[in-house]
Amino acid sequence: MPHDPTALVLLSGGQDSTTCLFWAKERFTRLQTLCFDYGQRHRIELVSAARIARMAGSQSHSVLPIPSLAQLGGNALTDSSLSMLSPTAPGGLPATFVPARNLLFLTIAGGYAWQHGIRDLVIGVCETDYSGYPDCRSETIVAQQQALRLGLDAPDLNIHTPLMSMSKADTVRLARSLPGCWDALAWSHSCYEGRYPPCAVCPACGLRAKGFNEAGEKDPLLIRGSTG
Amino acid sequence: MPHDPTALVLLSGGQDSTTCLFWAKERFTRLQTLCFDYGQRHRIELVSAARIARMAGSQSHSVLPIPSLAQLGGNALTDSSLSMLSPTAPGGLPATFVPARNLLFLTIAGGYAWQHGIRDLVIGVCETDYSGYPDCRSETIVAQQQALRLGLDAPDLNIHTPLMSMSKADTVRLARSLPGCWDALAWSHSCYEGRYPPCAVCPACGLRAKGFNEAGEKDPLLIRGSTG
Repeated sequence: MPHDPTALVLLSGGQDSTTCLFWAKERFTRLQTLCFDYGQRHRIELVSAARIARMAGSQSHSVLPIPSLAQLGGNALTDSSLSMLSPTAPGGLPATFVPARNLLFLTIAGGYAWQHGIRDLVIGVCETDYSGYPDCRSETIVAQQQALRLGLDAPDLNIHTPLMSMSKADTVRLARSLPGCWDALAWSHSCYEGRYPPCAVCPACGLRAKGFNEAGEKDPLLIRGSTG
Repeated sequence: MPHDPTALVLLSGGQDSTTCLFWAKERFTRLQTLCFDYGQRHRIELVSAARIARMAGSQSHSVLPIPSLAQLGGNALTDSSLSMLSPTAPGGLPATFVPARNLLFLTIAGGYAWQHGIRDLVIGVCETDYSGYPDCRSETIVAQQQALRLGLDAPDLNIHTPLMSMSKADTVRLARSLPGCWDALAWSHSCYEGRYPPCAVCPACGLRAKGFNEAGEKDPLLIRGSTG
């Protein structure tokens, strides 16, 4: 793997990955972005990600469809076991839920990085408020980094997690300090309802608002809404 | 994750994964099988896998399409970097090559297992003649197992690799000893040319023949050919 000062940023179009993208812009000469489409997201997220990638000057932005587990179930020849679509699935999760999705994203991103001679991956996971997702924890990411280093024979592959130990308010303050990031956040998307202006009621809107409030900042997404 | 005596076997329809399936049949009460379709394979492989899954009494057999890296490149908005389709890709590999594909397969299989309450995965990787693929080595698989245990919060998840330290002749001898396996091997597929009867010239046919020769056995696939 040739050494190349490029970072590959996993970009969902949300607040955290947008902040990571501009964090990487300060530290790497070139940026590439990957976005995963695993069926559950509103198209507005994909549009946000593409727009933000352009705003950051990403050299290439790729959207990769991820087969959902629902597809898996649909191909069963004989399936007397638990249906993927069953409401009795573990935790009552929807069929589009991808267990350990960050491991899946990182594994695919690792392959892309290897093919492009990139050794630095950036992902916006955070264990401070990881909401019960064990694939957001530091030790999980470190383990996946080790699997990728061995599996790709790439001992210098790094997974950067700049937000890992930050509160939501810390993330807002970081974004404020990064050139270009604040303008890009005006086009990021968080609302689970897929709405713009955001619904202000769903958990994603609530968590986002909490971070901006605690940091004493106005969310540029909402200002855009009131002025546009 | 409830304890359940089910093994999830990654089944390509080739000799090694077929042998692993019948190895698992001796050790677990129930079997489920997963097959990945990542564009490069001949349809005959998928047909082989489905047939062999039925022969082993697999409770469910699922075929999951994996987006190839070629698809990734096709979605780039602006891609001034190395094309995935370029013949100058690392190692001169085809666009359908998936770096560290076994990590990708295991990550998806781990999610499937979690959703179905399965804690035992079986994969036919082998480091003895791993042909330069670092994702077939034992330490790589152990690292991916650790990432999945942490990322799925499933400390009792196990990845079984019964062929890891076997020669091709050992694998043939193991298959000979497993009830039903020999008959199933008659329907397995190895030929890179996608031909039946196999071409006998490609590297996959050559490696398969070498194992049977060294074990002093006739390949049931060829016997099937001469009598069918």
